[in-house]
Amino acid sequence: MNYKMLGRFISMILAIETASMIPALLISLFCRESRPVIGFLVAMAAAGVASALLYLLTRGAGTDFYAREGMVCVGVSWIALCLFGCIPFVVSGAIPHFIDALFETVSGFTTTGSTIVPSPSSLPKGILYWRSFSHWLGGMGVLVFLLALVPVSGRNEGYTLHILRAESSGPSVGKLVPKMRQTATVLYLTYIALTILNFIFLLCGGMSPFDSVCTAFGTAGTGGFGTRDTSIMDFSPYIQIVCTVFMFLFGINFSMYYLILLKRVRSVFRDEELRFYVLTVFGSAGLIIWNLLRNNVYGIGDSIRHAFFQVVSIITTTGFSTANFENDWPAFSQAILVILMAVGACAGSTGGGLKCSRVIMLFKIMKRNVGEVMHPQKVKTVRLSGKPVPEKILANTNAYFAAYILLMVASFFLVSFDSFLLGSPFGFTENSTAVLSCFNNIGPGLGKIGPSSNFSQFGILSKCVLIMDMLAGRLEIFPIIVLFSRKSWQRG
Amino acid sequence: MNYKMLGRFISMILAIETASMIPALLISLFCRESRPVIGFLVAMAAAGVASALLYLLTRGAGTDFYAREGMVCVGVSWIALCLFGCIPFVVSGAIPHFIDALFETVSGFTTTGSTIVPSPSSLPKGILYWRSFSHWLGGMGVLVFLLALVPVSGRNEGYTLHILRAESSGPSVGKLVPKMRQTATVLYLTYIALTILNFIFLLCGGMSPFDSVCTAFGTAGTGGFGTRDTSIMDFSPYIQIVCTVFMFLFGINFSMYYLILLKRVRSVFRDEELRFYVLTVFGSAGLIIWNLLRNNVYGIGDSIRHAFFQVVSIITTTGFSTANFENDWPAFSQAILVILMAVGACAGSTGGGLKCSRVIMLFKIMKRNVGEVMHPQKVKTVRLSGKPVPEKILANTNAYFAAYILLMVASFFLVSFDSFLLGSPFGFTENSTAVLSCFNNIGPGLGKIGPSSNFSQFGILSKCVLIMDMLAGRLEIFPIIVLFSRKSWQRG
Repeated sequence: MNYKMLGRFISMILAIETASMIPALLISLFCRESRPVIGFLVAMAAAGVASALLYLLTRGAGTDFYAREGMVCVGVSWIALCLFGCIPFVVSGAIPHFIDALFETVSGFTTTGSTIVPSPSSLPKGILYWRSFSHWLGGMGVLVFLLALVPVSGRNEGYTLHILRAESSGPSVGKLVPKMRQTATVLYLTYIALTILNFIFLLCGGMSPFDSVCTAFGTAGTGGFGTRDTSIMDFSPYIQIVCTVFMFLFGINFSMYYLILLKRVRSVFRDEELRFYVLTVFGSAGLIIWNLLRNNVYGIGDSIRHAFFQVVSIITTTGFSTANFENDWPAFSQAILVILMAVGACAGSTGGGLKCSRVIMLFKIMKRNVGEVMHPQKVKTVRLSGKPVPEKILANTNAYFAAYILLMVASFFLVSFDSFLLGSPFGFTENSTAVLSCFNNIGPGLGKIGPSSNFSQFGILSKCVLIMDMLAGRLEIFPIIVLFSRKSWQRG
Repeated sequence: MNYKMLGRFISMILAIETASMIPALLISLFCRESRPVIGFLVAMAAAGVASALLYLLTRGAGTDFYAREGMVCVGVSWIALCLFGCIPFVVSGAIPHFIDALFETVSGFTTTGSTIVPSPSSLPKGILYWRSFSHWLGGMGVLVFLLALVPVSGRNEGYTLHILRAESSGPSVGKLVPKMRQTATVLYLTYIALTILNFIFLLCGGMSPFDSVCTAFGTAGTGGFGTRDTSIMDFSPYIQIVCTVFMFLFGINFSMYYLILLKRVRSVFRDEELRFYVLTVFGSAGLIIWNLLRNNVYGIGDSIRHAFFQVVSIITTTGFSTANFENDWPAFSQAILVILMAVGACAGSTGGGLKCSRVIMLFKIMKRNVGEVMHPQKVKTVRLSGKPVPEKILANTNAYFAAYILLMVASFFLVSFDSFLLGSPFGFTENSTAVLSCFNNIGPGLGKIGPSSNFSQFGILSKCVLIMDMLAGRLEIFPIIVLFSRKSWQRG
């Protein structure tokens, strides 16, 4: 392990975090919120000092940097980011308990949006802003942000690739442009442009500038923290439609936007993952609309609006809600939403879940296996959007899927065990959907942790398990497992 | 496709089925049940004539027989077996509707044990016997039975292997003895001996001979059909303990018994799957006992008995019950049972589910992938019980797991869709656990399809989906998928 390089990265991440707290601090100052001001100052001082110390200690870092280093770097950086990021919550007294504050921060950075705050609207403005901004920063990845910012010399092309791979979502990261650093820059510029557009559209709908900023951050990161206690339910249909469209856009692989800019529209239409995503969204929404109309839940207009909003919110793993689908919707519509929870958004987007491309690949792996029974002598390559997928990526997809299911089952076991020890009020529905929701970075669960409720009643063990689940889900498992491997910490 | 050979196999399978109905016919005659007598006579006539016709039509069958032929043969044979097997139910009027009768028959042969009969105890004795005997015949596999019976010349060693592979459970079938046919014989002799032992132990506990036979068949096939409406709840603790022990024994890979006979006990102790199975059973039962005691559900004796019974019944996918775990047990105990549903028994046993060896391999595949991130240049082999597992088997395990999850999700979608169309009383719990239970060949679900209830209220589409799920679960998916592939039906 290249410890100096690791320290150098954490130092830079903490510097970025310190800088990102400035707007939240200014908002708190402007609103005369004295305790949050102290909270942000303490957090900034702590992160700033830690950053400076690490910087001094890691002079002359070597350049050896492989996939292992990339994963460890991403894992440790995210943990550091969350540990320092929860200081404002604790010091300001908004969320006094450390584990609760850590849960909220991890839920923010991993763009999950599960909350332990019973009434978000009663939080100070600065804290609310910081909560939503963590979605934005975590959405595209803070290390990708760093790589886009910091000038890297040619010989370090390697570590940019390894970090981008470890932090970005989806089974493979393609190079958009020859240099990896430029790829990071292109991704971030697209992200910023779309977020600003989203903000402007919300503002035009009469939303206050503060609500618009926070909602745009929550949408862009496909996070789901809102500024009101009722998510997006109380806002106008126009605002709900804007949210639907932008959630949908942020669930698409960002490379597609770059291809559109290059006028390679045909490549976009030929992308299998995008077609699967679009078909799934429209197909699911269509079935839900039919179900809602036949069961007389809403009229035609409301059915269309709520169905599309909820489908897009779940498949992109945002977790905003406009309707209480848990109590009001029929079982078939709920079944579709539960299935979409695991499918997730496109690779290379800010959304979580298994990712559409992995689902497609699992289908194709299954199909190939059947084909091999028919003709054992033929070895078929699996193709995605017409291009052959390397066997290495297929093997990784298989291992990822196994890890995904096994870790969810293990987490469900631990959370259930904790609820037994504590005599908690939660049963099968809450324990299983909490894990499903956190691991896929969605937000609300079902039952007593539904869209209009919160996670505060879970025990400490459960909260710790769910924190690990959110991190494992956002970083796609391996950067977190690697941290627990003794081999990661060996020299050389 | 070698059609003549396929026809020849179906002809032989139907001959065996005709012969297996004789005891049921005799029981009906003895009990003077007139309609069941007619039912069995009609079924025997139909199966006998079909068998004879097919035999005449398939003279001079070629010997080309590959994995594809093996799978198609197994898939078609099972469908034929179930179609003729349901005739006695329909003609006797015990289950007048065809789809219901087919559901019950498939549930029998696949050793699922889900029933659509509200009160099994009111069925005629002959029908009850046939229902239980289908568990026994399906448990070890009717084609394996055929191979053990019919003398095969040396050059046909190939098809014995392909059929044994396609019909037996688990990721790989080892040769116990040099010739595959002898392997089939050894497996069946062990199966028969254990069933007789089970029958004797039940008889000693004061159970009637009829109940003992039926319960022994249900236990041996890890099926779960009982002769009473309350499963095993009303029988004495001694009977319940006998059932626990024998369910546990039938969940073990039958090769282990052969190794014990050869006095190779050390190989048995070294078997990783067996160790995993034993540890899981004792670990799960231990946790449930702790949970039951702390929540004051039962006293110490009852806790131990019910916990072991339910754990073994679920992990072996038998589905017998002594306690109403759905209403009376705390959430943590239920969580353990739900996890065990998917784990399943050992490969090469009569139990269903994913199988312990597959779960172990998925763990190891995940671990290897993490290792490869650490040291990309090293290629590690996965070992099971000390022996390297061929990459082909690992690839199959991955494809199997993908197919397992994808098919369950698709089935859940279809069953939910059907319940929407019908306006059925079933919700998320019933629809999801029905699929989980049928696919893993367990039997009861949760909610309104729990241990003391039945599946009769599902719609026709749902019943058809569940029938396919039971077959896919028992035959381990691929023999059923292959039937839907156009390539299977091409000549040559």
